Amino acid sequence: MELRKGLEDIAIKETSITFIDGELGRLYYRGYSIFDLASFSNFEEVAYLIWYGKLPTRHELEDFKSRLAEERGVSEDITSFVVRTSKQGNPMDILRTAVSMLGLEDRQEGDFIGKAIRITAKIPTIISLIQRSRNNQEFLEPDLSLSHAENFLYMINGTKPNAQDSRVLDVALMLHMDHEMNASTMACLVVASTLSDIYSSVVAGISALKGPLHGGANSEALKQFMEIGSPDNVEKYVMGKLSSGQRLMGFGHRIYKSMDPRAKILKEYATRMAKNEEINRLIEIAMKVEEVGIKVLGRRGIYPNVDFYSGLVFYSLGFEQDLFPTIFASARVIGWTAHIDEYLKDNKLIRPKAIYVGDLGKRYVPIDER
Amino acid sequence: MELRKGLEDIAIKETSITFIDGELGRLYYRGYSIFDLASFSNFEEVAYLIWYGKLPTRHELEDFKSRLAEERGVSEDITSFVVRTSKQGNPMDILRTAVSMLGLEDRQEGDFIGKAIRITAKIPTIISLIQRSRNNQEFLEPDLSLSHAENFLYMINGTKPNAQDSRVLDVALMLHMDHEMNASTMACLVVASTLSDIYSSVVAGISALKGPLHGGANSEALKQFMEIGSPDNVEKYVMGKLSSGQRLMGFGHRIYKSMDPRAKILKEYATRMAKNEEINRLIEIAMKVEEVGIKVLGRRGIYPNVDFYSGLVFYSLGFEQDLFPTIFASARVIGWTAHIDEYLKDNKLIRPKAIYVGDLGKRYVPIDER
Repeated sequence: MELRKGLEDIAIKETSITFIDGELGRLYYRGYSIFDLASFSNFEEVAYLIWYGKLPTRHELEDFKSRLAEERGVSEDITSFVVRTSKQGNPMDILRTAVSMLGLEDRQEGDFIGKAIRITAKIPTIISLIQRSRNNQEFLEPDLSLSHAENFLYMINGTKPNAQDSRVLDVALMLHMDHEMNASTMACLVVASTLSDIYSSVVAGISALKGPLHGGANSEALKQFMEIGSPDNVEKYVMGKLSSGQRLMGFGHRIYKSMDPRAKILKEYATRMAKNEEINRLIEIAMKVEEVGIKVLGRRGIYPNVDFYSGLVFYSLGFEQDLFPTIFASARVIGWTAHIDEYLKDNKLIRPKAIYVGDLGKRYVPIDER
Repeated sequence: MELRKGLEDIAIKETSITFIDGELGRLYYRGYSIFDLASFSNFEEVAYLIWYGKLPTRHELEDFKSRLAEERGVSEDITSFVVRTSKQGNPMDILRTAVSMLGLEDRQEGDFIGKAIRITAKIPTIISLIQRSRNNQEFLEPDLSLSHAENFLYMINGTKPNAQDSRVLDVALMLHMDHEMNASTMACLVVASTLSDIYSSVVAGISALKGPLHGGANSEALKQFMEIGSPDNVEKYVMGKLSSGQRLMGFGHRIYKSMDPRAKILKEYATRMAKNEEINRLIEIAMKVEEVGIKVLGRRGIYPNVDFYSGLVFYSLGFEQDLFPTIFASARVIGWTAHIDEYLKDNKLIRPKAIYVGDLGKRYVPIDER
């Protein structure tokens, strides 16, 4: 039997959802380049594309948008749970529990994508409730006339967002929707392969995304920019970190050997975002870190990844730092559920083995002789 | 890249926790035969053995037993949540959510096994609360003077159990504590490998165990005995099922090619249990099913597995049928956490790949041209 601890280079499934070209720095959803989707498409359309495998007609899209919007509300039970725990709880723990509660409440049969829509629609409501309730701000009902991204920002900030901000969130969420296999998607598949339900699977995805090796890097990258404090400190900070063998947060990716296409797109939006002095300074710092970092690391194929600019973007849109992994989850849930759906079309229970390296045949010694 | 959908014959880790000899029908925890442990040991001692890798001295065991007993209580928040959902909710959904809530409540740092003890101690309290509350029975505080198994039965039935019943549960729980790799343990490891927390990992384990391909077989086996109704119907029922290509519930195991040692042990206890007319008849039916089943399937290496008698045992002890997977979880949590602990000593992020089989380079068509 082969020992393959991290399952590196083992394919758990075939897929027609996402393709990553790590050499060229390209990402495709259902065969469409992420560059095209980020330029021409939007959250709802790309969610439809990932779940159904094709771009919707206008009629299909309108219908889909209303379904997503109508599902935004959460029960009083969940609302009061989030309010009760928001001040002390870790947001990913709250989200994991709240989605688990959604599973308890959903008594409708079948329609897998219908349930995926329901979860996707409700997660932003839960996230907003966490942020507003712990800041003693009144909870806002979702506004069904707004798009997914617009409503998300409205529920966080309490004011209707301008077109630029909602476009930035729209794009940022699109970029996080799927990324082929990774630990959280794998956790979803392992659970789904037992024929457990979609909520149990998504709860496992959130549980995995919580880990600092997975969903926590974007807030670390932002922390790093804040720590640096000024563009003048960048050179010294970066060189100091690298010469002492430490990692530069937001740099490097297992698959991409050139710039992560998602970082490229987010950078464009981030640099156009000019908000206030703090944000402007952080953007300046980030760009300088990128420049210095690439100078040193680029020749080894280490470039900024999606986390490098996404934390900055979320922060500038009004999200508090410890919520970033929950925003990641709010988008990735689309990839999780699409991969579950695809896997279940030809399911095989996921059940690896272990290699025994302990002793055998020990004699049981009565307690008084130990 | 190799496609290995179910990860069959891929070892995800080395282990010194559990060894299964499928040919001979042997199972070892930490090198000790399950037959010896079932004969001479008990729940607390085997839990200690699995977590710490050695049998405890008398002093260590006493200390460990008090720690387990003292952790049995659950918060008012969790109590009221379980009471509110017990009548309508699926018990595994309730347990998944309640353990997720435990994670939110536990603000103590470090001490992995300490947290594992806490979860293990509280799960029976949650399970009892589900059963009693949906039957409008008053909730009982855990009795700290009782052993784990005794207290579990006391909290379910409301009366102190007799020595035989608590011994049967003690043994049944021991037999379910670990079984090397399987889907739920794998789900735990995937989550833990991101360095997420122990509660998130256990929640993923419960999520996977909920699946009918994993934790649901024991109640199906019992349903089958109930359906048969009388020992006289067994021959016809079994032959009918098998000749029409259906599975006999509780028969067959991926690894065991002879009788599952856990089934052997449970059968002994079950046949000694003689309770009331219903139970006696079910036991008679089960033994007849075993006999007829082995006659036909034995030559193909298909024998009764642990689920064949465990449902019957749980039922005769007073547990309601849809709670069986939660009882399974209450014991397996020990194996889950031991495997997590072992994996994290030399952690590697679990991140497989997928093989892309879709189209590429599709042109984005504006919505009005679709």
